[in-house]
Amino acid sequence: MDMKRTVKKANNDAARRLYAPYAEAEWGFLNHWYPARFAGEVPEGSAVGVQICGVPIVLRRSKGKVYALKDQCLHRGVKLSAKPMCLTEDTITCWYHGFTFSIETGELVSIVAAPDDEIIGTTGIPTYPVEEVNGIVFVFVKSDDWEDEIPPLAQDLPIRFPDNNERFPHPFWPDTPSMLDKDAVALGVHRTGYANWRLACENGFDAGHLLIHKDCTIVQAKDWAVPLGIKPLTDQATQLIEDEDGPKGFINMYFTDNYEPVLVNERLNVKASGSVPKYFRTSMFLPGVLMVENWPEENVVQYEWYVPITDDTYEYWEVLVKRCPTEEDVKGFEYRFKNFYEPMALHGFNDCDLFARDAMQNFYADGAGWADEQLGDMDYSIITWRKVASRYNRGIAKKPRGVSGVVKGASNVLAEIRGPGCGHYRDKKGE
Amino acid sequence: MDMKRTVKKANNDAARRLYAPYAEAEWGFLNHWYPARFAGEVPEGSAVGVQICGVPIVLRRSKGKVYALKDQCLHRGVKLSAKPMCLTEDTITCWYHGFTFSIETGELVSIVAAPDDEIIGTTGIPTYPVEEVNGIVFVFVKSDDWEDEIPPLAQDLPIRFPDNNERFPHPFWPDTPSMLDKDAVALGVHRTGYANWRLACENGFDAGHLLIHKDCTIVQAKDWAVPLGIKPLTDQATQLIEDEDGPKGFINMYFTDNYEPVLVNERLNVKASGSVPKYFRTSMFLPGVLMVENWPEENVVQYEWYVPITDDTYEYWEVLVKRCPTEEDVKGFEYRFKNFYEPMALHGFNDCDLFARDAMQNFYADGAGWADEQLGDMDYSIITWRKVASRYNRGIAKKPRGVSGVVKGASNVLAEIRGPGCGHYRDKKGE
Amino acid sequence: MDMKRTVKKANNDAARRLYAPYAEAEWGFLNHWYPARFAGEVPEGSAVGVQICGVPIVLRRSKGKVYALKDQCLHRGVKLSAKPMCLTEDTITCWYHGFTFSIETGELVSIVAAPDDEIIGTTGIPTYPVEEVNGIVFVFVKSDDWEDEIPPLAQDLPIRFPDNNERFPHPFWPDTPSMLDKDAVALGVHRTGYANWRLACENGFDAGHLLIHKDCTIVQAKDWAVPLGIKPLTDQATQLIEDEDGPKGFINMYFTDNYEPVLVNERLNVKASGSVPKYFRTSMFLPGVLMVENWPEENVVQYEWYVPITDDTYEYWEVLVKRCPTEEDVKGFEYRFKNFYEPMALHGFNDCDLFARDAMQNFYADGAGWADEQLGDMDYSIITWRKVASRYNRGIAKKPRGVSGVVKGASNVLAEIRGPGCGHYRDKKGE
Repeated sequence: MDMKRTVKKANNDAARRLYAPYAEAEWGFLNHWYPARFAGEVPEGSAVGVQICGVPIVLRRSKGKVYALKDQCLHRGVKLSAKPMCLTEDTITCWYHGFTFSIETGELVSIVAAPDDEIIGTTGIPTYPVEEVNGIVFVFVKSDDWEDEIPPLAQDLPIRFPDNNERFPHPFWPDTPSMLDKDAVALGVHRTGYANWRLACENGFDAGHLLIHKDCTIVQAKDWAVPLGIKPLTDQATQLIEDEDGPKGFINMYFTDNYEPVLVNERLNVKASGSVPKYFRTSMFLPGVLMVENWPEENVVQYEWYVPITDDTYEYWEVLVKRCPTEEDVKGFEYRFKNFYEPMALHGFNDCDLFARDAMQNFYADGAGWADEQLGDMDYSIITWRKVASRYNRGIAKKPRGVSGVVKGASNVLAEIRGPGCGHYRDKKGE
Repeated sequence: MDMKRTVKKANNDAARRLYAPYAEAEWGFLNHWYPARFAGEVPEGSAVGVQICGVPIVLRRSKGKVYALKDQCLHRGVKLSAKPMCLTEDTITCWYHGFTFSIETGELVSIVAAPDDEIIGTTGIPTYPVEEVNGIVFVFVKSDDWEDEIPPLAQDLPIRFPDNNERFPHPFWPDTPSMLDKDAVALGVHRTGYANWRLACENGFDAGHLLIHKDCTIVQAKDWAVPLGIKPLTDQATQLIEDEDGPKGFINMYFTDNYEPVLVNERLNVKASGSVPKYFRTSMFLPGVLMVENWPEENVVQYEWYVPITDDTYEYWEVLVKRCPTEEDVKGFEYRFKNFYEPMALHGFNDCDLFARDAMQNFYADGAGWADEQLGDMDYSIITWRKVASRYNRGIAKKPRGVSGVVKGASNVLAEIRGPGCGHYRDKKGE
Repeated sequence: MDMKRTVKKANNDAARRLYAPYAEAEWGFLNHWYPARFAGEVPEGSAVGVQICGVPIVLRRSKGKVYALKDQCLHRGVKLSAKPMCLTEDTITCWYHGFTFSIETGELVSIVAAPDDEIIGTTGIPTYPVEEVNGIVFVFVKSDDWEDEIPPLAQDLPIRFPDNNERFPHPFWPDTPSMLDKDAVALGVHRTGYANWRLACENGFDAGHLLIHKDCTIVQAKDWAVPLGIKPLTDQATQLIEDEDGPKGFINMYFTDNYEPVLVNERLNVKASGSVPKYFRTSMFLPGVLMVENWPEENVVQYEWYVPITDDTYEYWEVLVKRCPTEEDVKGFEYRFKNFYEPMALHGFNDCDLFARDAMQNFYADGAGWADEQLGDMDYSIITWRKVASRYNRGIAKKPRGVSGVVKGASNVLAEIRGPGCGHYRDKKGE
């Protein structure tokens, strides 16, 4: 099958119709599992606010377990997390008027200042399922009308090895560890990026963007042989993963006959450099989680999430996972994480990706990019992602109301920036 | 009468229709008296710009008296206050092209550069009535089509004592002083808050928000007995004030049989703390002025204004008034203001209110809060306020045109924040 | 002819219809020559991004010559200039995926990672004609549908002397030099102003705004006799320049019988001050370039451009031109530029103009100013400009799509300003 014709076809009007749901999902996909915070960011007794797909969520840890509730008091709409107040172990209280909710059910169980109010027991706020795995707090960001069973976290994580060894062989590296492995240790960082979450996703597995990484210190230090590009040769290059009860996504079959590295560009007189082969493979799953196998080094895997906050911000998660059967293994991984992986891979290498995603935002923010982009052969996996995401997402988040990031401008912004002083709440005194 | 049923009823559709004018008043109420600046902020010969209800206003003091004019030159629309120019004692001149207006009438009396222009004498800018009382410059923010007499300032200030002693007895504290008392001294501060003015108003007299103050240093230092809440028992708890020629508003009849302090919440296992009784009472008047009697201490009253600037900013005024018959009394009040009231009450205590108001803004900014809020028993006074404000306001400010705060975003904001340098008007030089 | 009646008539409905195209040109006029950067800002091998009339443009200098292309990759829309990559002397490469364009034609000549992609050679990005004159890189900002010949740069520059001596005599100063003179040297600065470009234009030649300059240090130091205003007496005061193949604009015939200086304003009791006569003359040309003859000193001319970036930002160019036949003349001009002209004229004097233009922005930003402004006698030249600009512009820039400055607000602005820290891309680490 001729790839070029595939691509041409892939982004035509018929294809656009196929990924129309994705094009509409400015605020993300609901009814999926997302990482919300590292476990260490939600200490016992705390109440921490996050926003995912436009849904404000407060995380509260009580007796070791993390609970998630809508971070918007039903009374006057303030965030419970704005000034955390926890009067009992089984509740969270709004700091403003004392509306108190069961952290288990979200039910309004009391009001500090009005213990007899008849509203008590008749209403409440939504709660969200939580799973804490290997130091990461995952939340199932549920729409209000979701009535099905909650799918297991594993359905929203990358496929696992060695279970999939036969289907997706990896002759050049050992079995990829998984977040869900018993002795797995996950270490990482997250930070806010300033682009739509979809632009972030599409950067992650993009086979055509190796160019932005060729000058990275880690590439130079390791003398990795980074090709100019990786060219899909057959329609098996990108393989769909759509098992009924498993994660939905696709895998790029690098280092097989389906792909060919591009080593020379004669017209531009450039050649791939580096002499040490660097084997790796990317796959991508709903709701937006990337797996890079054999990365940055052997026996380590890099996961990335691009979690929608608003329509123009996302939380960028980079997590490295390694199996560490002994305490010494754990310490060794932590040491290498701190002194090598974090500065040179998660930052040095991936900061270029952060830059690239934000650089696309102007083109797509007003819709122009979605209409005018001109995709090429190398973008076959992007079209694949858009279609698979359109087919298997469990719900499109609508533009929310009444939460942070909906109203974009504010009267005071320029004044604050430009004024002689920049203080917040500056006083003017009388005589 | 059962309060609970009253509240339920209070925020139903019929009630919402009754306070629809208030719900529309995003930019405030026109044709009312508002504090614009402290007297000391408008020294002789100065021209100071403020914005109230979206109306730009320039205050000019000449021969001791303060005049107020529209702060927008009729020629090219710049603010007269942007670069004050006063060539004669009875005029203010636009610094740009010299359009010169009578400070008394607003008439265009000359143009510096074109003394013979036939436009002179045929046009002008609006002026606004000014009253300077006890160190505060009040402006009557008039709509262009207001043709009635200007109501006295007293109609837009709280009711006075001892005149109202019989009607609203206060057995636990001495007569409340008034801004208008002959020997009254007013001391205070004002600052900008980042929320709609109505959210600020509704925090002021809110009987249910004592919770946010319980940890304040002043409460702890004084060991004040602050209840968990104050529960209305009868429909006399909140009494309307709607005398024909007087201020319009309502009073919360705390420390009467109409209210009951909530001292214990058994479900949450919390009790009111503090051992020293603290008596006070709140009342609220058009266009948005709060009176807290017997506060922060005996013989002192606290006034608060929430003056609309735009639809998402307001000027928060806190003013303490005390009768000081002798110069020594004045000095004593000033000393206590500086060393106790200002740091521990106006800031320590009320900073929590500022935080709370701004915390509501996201919920209400796009209209969601007005539709989705869920009020309870404790909010009876809020519904009362919305209705009385709807009934007695003298005009709803429309969204203005051509003034600061209407166009919310600007092209350069992110660039300025994120750019390598943040200077305004940075040069790029040629060779 | 009575000037007053002329002005009255000039801004009536009929006149507004005549300058309707100007009123629509929020984003500027296309198909004109604009200064983009000083030559020294585009060194050999660099790729520098600018935005003009909403069109992102990348300037690349190769083998001494500057080329201009659309600064938006056709693939995913990023700016080529965001991270310049130039692999060959005749191309520019997108840093993201390696799309490579001929700098001469804009044709897609290769893709680094996909040298065989069939899209190559079939598409490309627009290019723009460039002229580099006397240290300034000019770009002809072409609309996509422009098919006519490219007019010479001289048609978008001020008229020249001595060619126009007879038509526009200047008995009080020597022949004005021109940017296009063989031995001319141009020195200047440019910086971003925060207003619509038309407000900036209208300040440049405005005969009524001398008032803002009367206190400038240069005026005081030189003891220049600056009148209060300059009053047009006849309809020859402002003369149209509309030769078929020449620049289109007008000239203010100061220091002729058509104008009278206003020296006294009796009503306001002010007199012009200064004792040294200061002769000068302003003229203005499409697409928005001002010439101030005999300014700041003899044998020097000041050019100013107000180049639209977005609808609320413009690049303000100030350039002084002098004929310098010898190397010593050049050094002398550079010395005086650095130590006198730049600090006291381009800054000290013209900073007042920058302030004035931005002060108009609020009034005009939402359209209010265009409807409500009240022009007077002194504004005859402004009406003239609007009409001539409407008649002779070569195309109105539409609101663009997919570029910087179109989407005005962003979710994160307030958070960044107000947050406890203001860092960009702050990390949150796991355990």
